Amino acid sequence: MDSCLNSAIDTPWRRAVISVDQFSRGDIDEIFELADRLATGRTTPLGGKMIANVFYEPSTRTSSSFYSAMTRLGGSAIPINEVNYSSVTKGESLEDTIRTLECYCDLIVLRHFENDATERAMAVSSIPIINAGNGTGEHPTQALLDLYTIKKERGGLDGLTVSMMGDLKFGRTVHSLTKLLRMYDSRMRFVAPAALAMPSEYVWPADAQFTDLDDVIADSDVLYVTRVQTERIPGAEDFDFSYAVTPEHMARARDDMVLMHPLPRVGEIPPELDADPRAAYFRQMKYGLHVRMALLYAMIGNV
Amino acid sequence: MDSCLNSAIDTPWRRAVISVDQFSRGDIDEIFELADRLATGRTTPLGGKMIANVFYEPSTRTSSSFYSAMTRLGGSAIPINEVNYSSVTKGESLEDTIRTLECYCDLIVLRHFENDATERAMAVSSIPIINAGNGTGEHPTQALLDLYTIKKERGGLDGLTVSMMGDLKFGRTVHSLTKLLRMYDSRMRFVAPAALAMPSEYVWPADAQFTDLDDVIADSDVLYVTRVQTERIPGAEDFDFSYAVTPEHMARARDDMVLMHPLPRVGEIPPELDADPRAAYFRQMKYGLHVRMALLYAMIGNV
Amino acid sequence: MDSCLNSAIDTPWRRAVISVDQFSRGDIDEIFELADRLATGRTTPLGGKMIANVFYEPSTRTSSSFYSAMTRLGGSAIPINEVNYSSVTKGESLEDTIRTLECYCDLIVLRHFENDATERAMAVSSIPIINAGNGTGEHPTQALLDLYTIKKERGGLDGLTVSMMGDLKFGRTVHSLTKLLRMYDSRMRFVAPAALAMPSEYVWPADAQFTDLDDVIADSDVLYVTRVQTERIPGAEDFDFSYAVTPEHMARARDDMVLMHPLPRVGEIPPELDADPRAAYFRQMKYGLHVRMALLYAMIGNV
Repeated sequence: MDSCLNSAIDTPWRRAVISVDQFSRGDIDEIFELADRLATGRTTPLGGKMIANVFYEPSTRTSSSFYSAMTRLGGSAIPINEVNYSSVTKGESLEDTIRTLECYCDLIVLRHFENDATERAMAVSSIPIINAGNGTGEHPTQALLDLYTIKKERGGLDGLTVSMMGDLKFGRTVHSLTKLLRMYDSRMRFVAPAALAMPSEYVWPADAQFTDLDDVIADSDVLYVTRVQTERIPGAEDFDFSYAVTPEHMARARDDMVLMHPLPRVGEIPPELDADPRAAYFRQMKYGLHVRMALLYAMIGNV
Repeated sequence: MDSCLNSAIDTPWRRAVISVDQFSRGDIDEIFELADRLATGRTTPLGGKMIANVFYEPSTRTSSSFYSAMTRLGGSAIPINEVNYSSVTKGESLEDTIRTLECYCDLIVLRHFENDATERAMAVSSIPIINAGNGTGEHPTQALLDLYTIKKERGGLDGLTVSMMGDLKFGRTVHSLTKLLRMYDSRMRFVAPAALAMPSEYVWPADAQFTDLDDVIADSDVLYVTRVQTERIPGAEDFDFSYAVTPEHMARARDDMVLMHPLPRVGEIPPELDADPRAAYFRQMKYGLHVRMALLYAMIGNV
Repeated sequence: MDSCLNSAIDTPWRRAVISVDQFSRGDIDEIFELADRLATGRTTPLGGKMIANVFYEPSTRTSSSFYSAMTRLGGSAIPINEVNYSSVTKGESLEDTIRTLECYCDLIVLRHFENDATERAMAVSSIPIINAGNGTGEHPTQALLDLYTIKKERGGLDGLTVSMMGDLKFGRTVHSLTKLLRMYDSRMRFVAPAALAMPSEYVWPADAQFTDLDDVIADSDVLYVTRVQTERIPGAEDFDFSYAVTPEHMARARDDMVLMHPLPRVGEIPPELDADPRAAYFRQMKYGLHVRMALLYAMIGNV
């Protein structure tokens, strides 16, 4: 764990969502109950409020999710996707951009290519910040929505066997989700080629590591598959990334296994599996909308 | 007609607007009456609803029109213009993008460079789709707004002499509008160089084809001019595209002729004609706003 | 002064905000009182109205400010940032773009790289226009918000000593603000290298010009610092632009001096001064939001 995260733990998450390390089981219960409630309601408690979606790296999926979450709560969102070719190209610092936007908004959702961006933003901001991905660091709202998905699909979170497959070395999603699952006594199964194996600090003695999905498929309550983000891996062209879930795997899997993927996918799960009721990756995004509504409401809804 | 359109006819237009072939005269009457009504009202029947404007090809005009239509009905719109450099560059399929956005929205407006895009989107989507231009295929809401413009400017649609000039071979607008006008016994006059002539499947025996505007100007109730979309024409630099409406043409035209253009224009109609009361191309866009309000309301307004 | 500005003076500012030359002291009093009132209220008098933010040059700061101003008044805004790669690349004229957007909106905010853009837009538009920066010309809403900042920070505007430092030759901000301050009997102090000195038409006999901030710092009620916009200066790499406000300067400055900057900054004011209560440049943006709310309300609020 790098130094950012240690200081992040002490920041109240209503002030700034930086890392999953900030959340206790009680916090998570509260957020998930709020998500359940907001998912069904048609109230607009954030009317007149505004967020800025500041994306130094583009992400249609995440920015749309926050945009939609804010709008469904009655508020509005300023999309700052052009950040790359606008004031920033005039040499403006992240800190000045944040202090500008806090004049106009009630909360800033920030995706940035540097790991310390959220904490730098928080240091100068008088309004709440949500980390929507900071370099190779964390993407805590993704981890929370993954956890919420497991809870909704399985009915509970305790004592599950969770298998993760893909790029476990560089993927921030699997790191953050692993941390959260530790609070629920999950048994972890990591499937990756050696070059992309889960870093040792995330691996506990009771865990097991594999290189073949066949070794864990029959035993998993949850199978979490990730894309190999070649754009983040120096020398990626030298790896052999060929792995995928097949109908044969699904035939051996449990009837109540939950198949997840943060998307986008590029072949790890073929579209022919989409009709399988265990394929939860599109429902996962709907759950993500509800979790983000809950976070926004908890942070700026004066609850 | 390609195979897409044949299957499109069987799709209810409230489920997905794919092609003008889906619309009967009764459907059109209903949509135009709704457009009349929504144009004057200040109701917000789509409050709390959201559309996604997904444009794989940029179009300020069309995306702004839908954005405005949705906003005027009390709803909101997510602009996904960055689709080109975002998830798509990570290799995501159209189908996965659609299934993502349907988690957040109530309807998707889709412009795509491939002719089968709308039907591929519809095949995986549980929410309504509107085709806002699919490659060289159709742009049905443009054709409907063109027809609505003629009705509003002329007072009726039956038995008109409609002349079309410009790129009649590659222009999807003139193809779709011609199909719609067939329902109203229009006499069609096509003016184009041979290399850009109207394809034979759109030409009926009673129609006439010309290469000079002088031959039809005095006889037309409607003159519909289009831009030559050189970006869609291989070897466009070899054509001679010099044609334009002149003040001399207008002097010979009827007092109640309607001069239309889908815009943008690049010289086919000089700005000095803009003040002519017969120049309807800017009113055409206002009518377009009202037609799109009507479609959105009919598709997701629970009427 | 170029010819544009002379004709602009005769245009009522509620019709089109083109130049600071349009505003009398009475107009400014009215706008500032409205800004005071709207800053504290939670009314939404522009509900159902829409503006278009048409930016031919990107500016996150200015477009976000108008977006936020409109949204806080209950209205909505269409961001047209993609103007560069959309219809315009198809050869559409500014005039046609404006006439398109006036079909959808109630007011157009326009930033353009040509000095005559606002007047060309106004000539064809039936809805109000706001100049949000026209080439090397004016940026009148910036000048108004600068003046409002001085009033709020100082309590009044008359008889102040205002020092300006930076690129005074090419910076449109300092030109416009200087014009406005003339109405309040300000004593002007200009600090710049000779190559970037204030053009003579803006310098009055009672003013004084310097090349060193040390000569004016102790005597200033307001210090207005600007960035050197190298992107607008041919041969900029040959200038020596090294100037900055230091803690030593601030130690010699008055306790009630107001330190301003239109932002973004690139070293003219180091971040270590941000905590100084005289540093007003972030409050300046908040005031800017209120001034733009006042202008929008005055122009399309039917007051």
